[in-house]
Amino acid sequence: MENFTAYNPTKLHFGNGIIKDLGEAAAALGKKALLVYGKGSVMRNGSYADTVAQLKNNHIGIIEYNGIKPNPVVDSVDEAAALGIRENIDMVVAVGGGSVIDSAKIIAVSIAEKAKGWDIMTGKQKPATSVPLIAVLTLAATGTEMNPTAVLQNHETDQKIGFRNPVMFPVHSFLDPGYTKSVPANHTAYGIVDLVAHSLEAWFGQGDAPLSDSFVIAIINEALEVGPLLMKNLENYEYRARIMWAATNALNDVTMHGRISGDWGVHALGHILSYLYDTPHGATLSIFYPAWMRQLAQKNPDRIIKLGKALFDTTTAEETISAFENFFRELGSPVKASEAGIGKEKEEEILSLLNKHNASGVHIRLNDYDRKAIVNMVLQ
Amino acid sequence: MENFTAYNPTKLHFGNGIIKDLGEAAAALGKKALLVYGKGSVMRNGSYADTVAQLKNNHIGIIEYNGIKPNPVVDSVDEAAALGIRENIDMVVAVGGGSVIDSAKIIAVSIAEKAKGWDIMTGKQKPATSVPLIAVLTLAATGTEMNPTAVLQNHETDQKIGFRNPVMFPVHSFLDPGYTKSVPANHTAYGIVDLVAHSLEAWFGQGDAPLSDSFVIAIINEALEVGPLLMKNLENYEYRARIMWAATNALNDVTMHGRISGDWGVHALGHILSYLYDTPHGATLSIFYPAWMRQLAQKNPDRIIKLGKALFDTTTAEETISAFENFFRELGSPVKASEAGIGKEKEEEILSLLNKHNASGVHIRLNDYDRKAIVNMVLQ
Repeated sequence: MENFTAYNPTKLHFGNGIIKDLGEAAAALGKKALLVYGKGSVMRNGSYADTVAQLKNNHIGIIEYNGIKPNPVVDSVDEAAALGIRENIDMVVAVGGGSVIDSAKIIAVSIAEKAKGWDIMTGKQKPATSVPLIAVLTLAATGTEMNPTAVLQNHETDQKIGFRNPVMFPVHSFLDPGYTKSVPANHTAYGIVDLVAHSLEAWFGQGDAPLSDSFVIAIINEALEVGPLLMKNLENYEYRARIMWAATNALNDVTMHGRISGDWGVHALGHILSYLYDTPHGATLSIFYPAWMRQLAQKNPDRIIKLGKALFDTTTAEETISAFENFFRELGSPVKASEAGIGKEKEEEILSLLNKHNASGVHIRLNDYDRKAIVNMVLQ
Repeated sequence: MENFTAYNPTKLHFGNGIIKDLGEAAAALGKKALLVYGKGSVMRNGSYADTVAQLKNNHIGIIEYNGIKPNPVVDSVDEAAALGIRENIDMVVAVGGGSVIDSAKIIAVSIAEKAKGWDIMTGKQKPATSVPLIAVLTLAATGTEMNPTAVLQNHETDQKIGFRNPVMFPVHSFLDPGYTKSVPANHTAYGIVDLVAHSLEAWFGQGDAPLSDSFVIAIINEALEVGPLLMKNLENYEYRARIMWAATNALNDVTMHGRISGDWGVHALGHILSYLYDTPHGATLSIFYPAWMRQLAQKNPDRIIKLGKALFDTTTAEETISAFENFFRELGSPVKASEAGIGKEKEEEILSLLNKHNASGVHIRLNDYDRKAIVNMVLQ
């Protein structure tokens, strides 16, 4: 085990009707909230109305910003932060999925630091503080509700990157699995892929951490067991709850303690597809993970074999990779680029951007040759 | 899954030489510390000297209180709190195992609230705040380093009870497995039993929480795998590290999310032995758990069978219970009261106190008949 710090101050409120506790939590943080959201789904699933009611009943003023898009861009963040500064808000309340909450984290820091979002994301301006953030999660996927990380795009620099800082933990997160019942099948599947991928990024990271390894296995097993059941019964509360909590744990650091780092190579690859073709994040991961593992298996199959043994009782790397492919297919998430509408003619475009940004893992380094081999596999 | 709140704000610093970060952490909390410790082991393992050096190098004044005993009593807590109030300290720094850190939690609250320790423990005075607490852990066992719970004895009321309040989370905890290398074999074994027992209290608690169940299995598996290796090689850093981190996770709530409560029946039984005969806490648990499970198996063996299947690949409750007994024996922890020097002639005394306090679990209720059956088994 490597030296590490375990620290996660987010107070996470989980369960049926749990939004009832938001008003009191918000009232302890101030009098005026910037309410950040995006798509209309928060209107349909009830989370927007419930959050507004909680704030109003506790006499908290509301300034609304609803311009956040999927695969969010830094321009929206700067626009929302300017509004928050102008209105002198006390807190940010984010209602939505990973895109909304990630954006809200950078909005909250930008307001406190009077800084541009991209200067925060790139480390040019180091944040010392943040306006307090309350998250209301409506999609089980990214784990942002209990970590200090945000991922944003910038079309000026052709980048989709992540940034992590302890000031960015939400102060409170509210997770009602009921809000996720209306998430359609495809995005439900992408969320499950995302939580599996986060667990895998830990598994393939650097450093020997046996208990964290066992937690990885436990979380992926939840996805393997509950994922297919949920896909056949999208409105089942218990299945929604188990996937939601598994997704939180996949990226709240319980899989990371005792490691030096995760890998994040597949995320680096996937971000390029989202950037170029607006491919949903989870879909990019089910496309790239099998190919990335096949490339790794040629050099060092040990971790893949160990994982397969624990999850699928398989004995070879290829059997393990096939088992993951079958699982992603069963969920309905693509395992080839063509299934996401990306044809072979895009090879040059994809590779060029991957190589420009030197897309690689932290632990398992990828070179131009690896990237070409992986892209060839996903385009087959 | 039941509704729950996940909240754990302790910043836990783990690893070889990690005490180097204590001084700066303490300096951010104030200028004067009440340094609480107990037995001479903290002198021998270096933790006392390292902590004092960290405080002095950061110009933090030190007031010492070294009167904490194993199975700590509330009198010492009140004595230390009076000293802290008199000296107007800014923080409590506790160096030691569970007894010292549990005592320090109540000392820190008593100082802030100007309250008697037992009034806090019994809920007579509800604490709203605490002086900040820094814990330096020197024994892997109770998990107190990352939770808001304390257990104390009171000889006036014949009680050993636990109390939990969110203000009692340590602000920082420092865990250097190196400090535990000199823990003798018996107390090393008791610590391993303790972490297994904490995991079992979660397993036998109320509410269906599949991911938390898997985390229980993962933690107990660490103990099953590493425990015997450590007992043969007490100075191995890696084994010490794995047991230390497993012990933290056994009681930092990762096994509890989604449940209504743990059970804690075996702890309630064990506390009486510690109270009456000063039996080490871990030893009371390896004595009572097999008997408690045998009593449960007569009514409802399902959870025992499920646990045995996952841990030992056993198929019956009795095989599972025997596997636990064998494991406790392999560690060198007693599985019968006689092995802890407690003979059959104590039956009346033990049962009388158990019945007086109506010792029972929260979920699996014990009546006089159950207690008699269990005590008969452990005295055999």
